[in-house]
Amino acid sequence: MTKRIKIVVAGPRGNMGREAVQLVAKTDTFDLVAVVDSRNDGKLLEDVEGFSGLSVPVYTDMQNCFEQHQADVLIDLTSPAFGRKHMEIAFANGVRPVVGTTGFSDEDISELRKMAEEKGLGAIIAPNFAIGAILMMKFSQLAAKFLPDVEIIERHHDRKLDAPSGTALKTAQLIAEVREAKKQGNELEKEELAGARGADFEGMRIHSVRLPGLVAHQEVIFGGEGQTLTIRHDSMNRASFMPGVKLAVETVLKIDTLVYGLEHIIE
Amino acid sequence: MTKRIKIVVAGPRGNMGREAVQLVAKTDTFDLVAVVDSRNDGKLLEDVEGFSGLSVPVYTDMQNCFEQHQADVLIDLTSPAFGRKHMEIAFANGVRPVVGTTGFSDEDISELRKMAEEKGLGAIIAPNFAIGAILMMKFSQLAAKFLPDVEIIERHHDRKLDAPSGTALKTAQLIAEVREAKKQGNELEKEELAGARGADFEGMRIHSVRLPGLVAHQEVIFGGEGQTLTIRHDSMNRASFMPGVKLAVETVLKIDTLVYGLEHIIE
Amino acid sequence: MTKRIKIVVAGPRGNMGREAVQLVAKTDTFDLVAVVDSRNDGKLLEDVEGFSGLSVPVYTDMQNCFEQHQADVLIDLTSPAFGRKHMEIAFANGVRPVVGTTGFSDEDISELRKMAEEKGLGAIIAPNFAIGAILMMKFSQLAAKFLPDVEIIERHHDRKLDAPSGTALKTAQLIAEVREAKKQGNELEKEELAGARGADFEGMRIHSVRLPGLVAHQEVIFGGEGQTLTIRHDSMNRASFMPGVKLAVETVLKIDTLVYGLEHIIE
Amino acid sequence: MTKRIKIVVAGPRGNMGREAVQLVAKTDTFDLVAVVDSRNDGKLLEDVEGFSGLSVPVYTDMQNCFEQHQADVLIDLTSPAFGRKHMEIAFANGVRPVVGTTGFSDEDISELRKMAEEKGLGAIIAPNFAIGAILMMKFSQLAAKFLPDVEIIERHHDRKLDAPSGTALKTAQLIAEVREAKKQGNELEKEELAGARGADFEGMRIHSVRLPGLVAHQEVIFGGEGQTLTIRHDSMNRASFMPGVKLAVETVLKIDTLVYGLEHIIE
Repeated sequence: MTKRIKIVVAGPRGNMGREAVQLVAKTDTFDLVAVVDSRNDGKLLEDVEGFSGLSVPVYTDMQNCFEQHQADVLIDLTSPAFGRKHMEIAFANGVRPVVGTTGFSDEDISELRKMAEEKGLGAIIAPNFAIGAILMMKFSQLAAKFLPDVEIIERHHDRKLDAPSGTALKTAQLIAEVREAKKQGNELEKEELAGARGADFEGMRIHSVRLPGLVAHQEVIFGGEGQTLTIRHDSMNRASFMPGVKLAVETVLKIDTLVYGLEHIIE
Repeated sequence: MTKRIKIVVAGPRGNMGREAVQLVAKTDTFDLVAVVDSRNDGKLLEDVEGFSGLSVPVYTDMQNCFEQHQADVLIDLTSPAFGRKHMEIAFANGVRPVVGTTGFSDEDISELRKMAEEKGLGAIIAPNFAIGAILMMKFSQLAAKFLPDVEIIERHHDRKLDAPSGTALKTAQLIAEVREAKKQGNELEKEELAGARGADFEGMRIHSVRLPGLVAHQEVIFGGEGQTLTIRHDSMNRASFMPGVKLAVETVLKIDTLVYGLEHIIE
Repeated sequence: MTKRIKIVVAGPRGNMGREAVQLVAKTDTFDLVAVVDSRNDGKLLEDVEGFSGLSVPVYTDMQNCFEQHQADVLIDLTSPAFGRKHMEIAFANGVRPVVGTTGFSDEDISELRKMAEEKGLGAIIAPNFAIGAILMMKFSQLAAKFLPDVEIIERHHDRKLDAPSGTALKTAQLIAEVREAKKQGNELEKEELAGARGADFEGMRIHSVRLPGLVAHQEVIFGGEGQTLTIRHDSMNRASFMPGVKLAVETVLKIDTLVYGLEHIIE
Repeated sequence: MTKRIKIVVAGPRGNMGREAVQLVAKTDTFDLVAVVDSRNDGKLLEDVEGFSGLSVPVYTDMQNCFEQHQADVLIDLTSPAFGRKHMEIAFANGVRPVVGTTGFSDEDISELRKMAEEKGLGAIIAPNFAIGAILMMKFSQLAAKFLPDVEIIERHHDRKLDAPSGTALKTAQLIAEVREAKKQGNELEKEELAGARGADFEGMRIHSVRLPGLVAHQEVIFGGEGQTLTIRHDSMNRASFMPGVKLAVETVLKIDTLVYGLEHIIE
């Protein structure tokens, strides 16, 4: 009989947290043992709106939670402010963290990796759990070796504040690692209206579309003589992150270092 | 029996000119009587490379051509420098011009329209003969009445010099005629990389992609709550202009004024 | 001062019904006077889950509802089984129906139109309230006059039962009204795998894609020599229907016959 | 100094053959020594229409050609009827074949591989030289491991005879190698019009669109909860094959077995 994986979810009331609680609850091989929330200490989760039927305890103090419950994995979907601290508490309690928070510095990651390796514990930080998006980035990096002319178009709802999106920038960085830097387009090209050719990232161009009715979409277009290759990801809602969370939980048990980015566990 | 339409083509050796000569030659109701070219005066067209089998005379002087040959329609696909002069010669000889040249000023058009009406002759100036592109623009203008949030992405081969394309600017102008001016996107929106949000045209955004392997493509995207409507035109080669040239030749015989833009003869 | 439009919504607990109730509640010129539901008779709507703050009465009997409340418009989003009956009750009470139900026979529509005209009441039956979808159909019909080679690809989530979708069939019918019937593709074309070329509708082909992660999408592709024109609608959620419901409510007050299809009130 | 690669092209007058001759002629490291054609024996290639300036001899007999000219590589772009025979002649003369012909049986390939290995000669058979298309297939196979719900839409000009295209079938086979066989869509799904759901290939669906104005396009769409991943290749003309032909010529010199499919030499 397979042993079920004992899981604590931190941040259960956020968008992704709610999805993650449901994912753990409905996965046969997963066992939800407790949640860590900024409020509702001492309640049962089922007494919090939107979690009927889930009779697991809520803790506001993570250390306290781990003292009461033996866990294999912490799924942390709280805010950047807590990510590092939560990982340290997890390591101290022998729990392997799967963290969906962004905002770690290179130094944070390096220090946290050292902690993980000293403890012999796996840890995964994933700024993006959408497997489709991860595959898009991975494929883009490979395609750029053979077709080095590339532009990125990302499309989001018109309430989004930043442009380009974090995923677009990440994709461009991954491509830049393998592609010889070059300025694309005609060297005599002229913008009749400023900005028409988009943002310049090491000679590649990135375009950000913002419209109501859009959710989160990106296409990466590679051009070669007589052909184009396009890799596109459309994300409709947070549910798209769950297959990635599941894969991360299963993988974190098999590794003994910190992995940053889901792309490194997909092959 | 239907009388065949007698046609002179000016600019037969350009990309569109070659297609137009073939179009006239193979259309049963059309009759190619002569061509006007900047060289090859006095030759037969079949003696010029790429026109085998076409035994019509070549003239370098348009007036001389019309003195030798009675014609119904002039198809002029030369450069902007000659467009206006060629139209005046056509009018003086009772010939109806179909002109594919851009670069006419509003004053040019107004004066040429006056000439056409005084002579009772039809005339059509069409910066774009691609019926698909014309429909795209027409539909975009109509959609903007109901869905006023819109962005344009145009994609062309990476040898193109100008950005945005003439078609993109024309589309934006047509939309602006019916759409209440408004700045789209989040008012607190921030470009992390300059140009990401594209060119601003009265609050609409235009993005220009340039890659090898692309030909000439444009999509106009309208966003509304929970939905997007996209109108896209892909033009692979100059052959796409020929149905529009044919329609223009047939229409110019039925009108007695100057029409600027094929969109006004499609309904 | 503009008189507010008094509205009864039938079917408030369905997906579209919930959106419609919110639409009416939040529109300044609209006044929600009551709802008709298959249960909850005598309750206030605010006592039904998901409608907090809406203190309007619930009726299970529509006739009873109209006896208690004078209304201008009935928005009926119930099932096909009730559509006709509800319209008859509305007419009998001098109320103008806006109906989102499908499943009416040609005979139904003809008889209901006669009733509407006898009473001098407007009525609108709209199988589709998404304005973007309506525009897609309208544009498709116009494009088919100039580019008669066309195929439809519709894409929906993989729980959908019918293929092709109702919208795809409606689009094909509208195109068939203006397009000379013709079998497209190479006359010697051979399907190596049955079904590859899709469903045949008067010589046009329709393709139905079903995948998780899709919502409701359709593209209509027109091909001509050297070019394609594509009209695409992406619908993310029921909110996309609300601008159409609003337009229908405002329009039904101005007409005195039955209109079938929102495309006839958009221009 | 790099030794230039001595190349014979068979089938120089076909669409791909013409491109290949030009490719070899203009590549600094390549040397066109002769061509094998079904006619024009004893002529110089420059005397054949469309090859001005190429003064290499034409042979109708390949054995004769190899007796007169020492060659490193044979680029064979003739028809399936000759593919195997030409490879045998090449092997017998110590020449490494790069073959663009389809129609080899599994037995052919197995026997030809044995010959190649006995001679210690590399050989590459590539049904598709478009690197973009190869990448599309490679990525599709990888994506199917994580997102097993997939449909293929391929689009070609309306003169094409077979449906689905060879590339679509090849893609489906590659996906089937890694994907657990499963019937997609709703198990109660019903085709109101036969063929709407496309061709069935081990539970995946393939759709073939045929329209004038299209060239050669394919998209592979993967669906997961809340997301889709799309990989699309657009091929505009035969020029898109040439980077692949070049890569194959360079690679065939470094291997000593037969490789079937360019995907096995890209990584």
